[in-house]
Amino acid sequence: MANPDVQIFPHATGLAAAIVAKHQEPQDLVYYAGWFCPYVQRGWIALEEKGIKYQYKEVNPYRKERHFLDINPKGLVPAVVYKGKAIYESLIICEFLEDAYPDQNPLLPSDPTSRAIARVWIDHVSKAIIPAFQRLLQAQEKEKQDEAREELYIALRKFANEVQGPYFLGDEFSLVDVAIAPWIVRDYVVHENRGFTREAVSDAWVKYAGTVEKRESVVKTQSERRHLDGIYGRYLRNGAQSEAAKAVRAGRDIP
Amino acid sequence: MANPDVQIFPHATGLAAAIVAKHQEPQDLVYYAGWFCPYVQRGWIALEEKGIKYQYKEVNPYRKERHFLDINPKGLVPAVVYKGKAIYESLIICEFLEDAYPDQNPLLPSDPTSRAIARVWIDHVSKAIIPAFQRLLQAQEKEKQDEAREELYIALRKFANEVQGPYFLGDEFSLVDVAIAPWIVRDYVVHENRGFTREAVSDAWVKYAGTVEKRESVVKTQSERRHLDGIYGRYLRNGAQSEAAKAVRAGRDIP
Ligand SMILES: N[C@@H](CCC(=O)N[C@@H](CS)C(=O)NCC(=O)O)C(=O)O
Ligand SMILES: N[C@@H](CCC(=O)N[C@@H](CS)C(=O)NCC(=O)O)C(=O)O
Repeated sequence: MANPDVQIFPHATGLAAAIVAKHQEPQDLVYYAGWFCPYVQRGWIALEEKGIKYQYKEVNPYRKERHFLDINPKGLVPAVVYKGKAIYESLIICEFLEDAYPDQNPLLPSDPTSRAIARVWIDHVSKAIIPAFQRLLQAQEKEKQDEAREELYIALRKFANEVQGPYFLGDEFSLVDVAIAPWIVRDYVVHENRGFTREAVSDAWVKYAGTVEKRESVVKTQSERRHLDGIYGRYLRNGAQSEAAKAVRAGRDIP
Repeated sequence: MANPDVQIFPHATGLAAAIVAKHQEPQDLVYYAGWFCPYVQRGWIALEEKGIKYQYKEVNPYRKERHFLDINPKGLVPAVVYKGKAIYESLIICEFLEDAYPDQNPLLPSDPTSRAIARVWIDHVSKAIIPAFQRLLQAQEKEKQDEAREELYIALRKFANEVQGPYFLGDEFSLVDVAIAPWIVRDYVVHENRGFTREAVSDAWVKYAGTVEKRESVVKTQSERRHLDGIYGRYLRNGAQSEAAKAVRAGRDIP
């Protein structure tokens, strides 16, 4: 089946368009991105938070173009090319930015134990929160939706219980916040279509989500919602053909 | 359903018993381990490779004892308590050991790009190799077994293609080798019961697997096979009640 996402709107809009425009000059670090993608937003937030010089290049990952498959054989955005070498996977990109730019606004604590605890909660985002969010999006029958919504509530509640406030690790915005932020700013999709509410998670979650969505780096890496409607519409009808959509349908790990 | 693994053999045997015996004294770092567990073997290999002082404590994670749930609320081994603070998830523990003992035989390269590429392949072990291995173990019908075996071959072949030799990153044994080693030394289970052969992956794989399984730290963290038979027998009949077994049956991400 041809992937309808090949036809997605081709570029960032709104506030995101402004920072794309500012990052067109060649740099050591090239960020291969899709304006619409939550995983891309992670790396993008980290780049902005750290004030790194980067060149933004828009890619439509659904086209599976040869030049991009040579960078990431999985064909997924985001990817980074740094001094000619390719790196992919959003969380690995975030860790890379920490390693390569250690003096620019660290997003992980320096103490080894605190770093490990941050990674435990980032792992919870990957293994519990995102899969539940994705299943909720794609679930068609009411019982499946109820089940996925409840799983999402449980996963978010566990996370919210650990928030030190105002950010996950306390006063400093960190990679834990980066890892979850793109799903916070997209939760209106499950709110409007799947009965999800922040209030049903917990008071701690309402407060935390409200703080993260106001962070400047999170705000300015967002495009206008209306261009996302087509993409999310396909997920909501369970017709999307992305690797993630297919994995969820097949009961497989999200790639 | 009561978990039959509650009855597993209670302690390490063979070469592993010898290093358990050597690590009974209290230390800053306590390693909560199950002798049989491949994820535990990862952290254990890293501890031995780095020559870290640690105290080994055997836990049966299927019992879900209160004292252990207080350390890891997921109830999974391995877990570390370091100066009173708890850390879990095998790969996060390995990264923690790198961060906390940077001068003791590094298992990640120092160059940020090489570190990121190492993590990309560790991620491939987590997202492609282990899930295929686990599905192959649990698959009951011939077609499902054939499908899972083929997926495992493809995932291992991709990995083998990137091996620099003799170890994944070249001359130095690294966290990439640590991440995959426990599944190499357990592949006899799918060889004897599911028609898996190393030769069917690729020549590069035969060579690499043969090198990794001879590494001293890998050899000495293994117990006698006969005590694993009961555990793997339950997986092979798809009767295991571990969190991983249940996730695979439900088409969920392995926790
Ligand atoms: N695990 C990857 C996931 C990236 C991902 O799924 N990106 C999507 C766009 S949001 C993509 O490139 N999809 C292309 C496809 O599914 O064919 C990461 O964290 O970077
Ligand atoms: N993702 C975890 C997996 C650990 C895991 O699944 N451990 C198993 C033993 S091999 C366990 O503790 N199982 C207990 C259970 O499933 O109830 C890691 O990498 O540490």
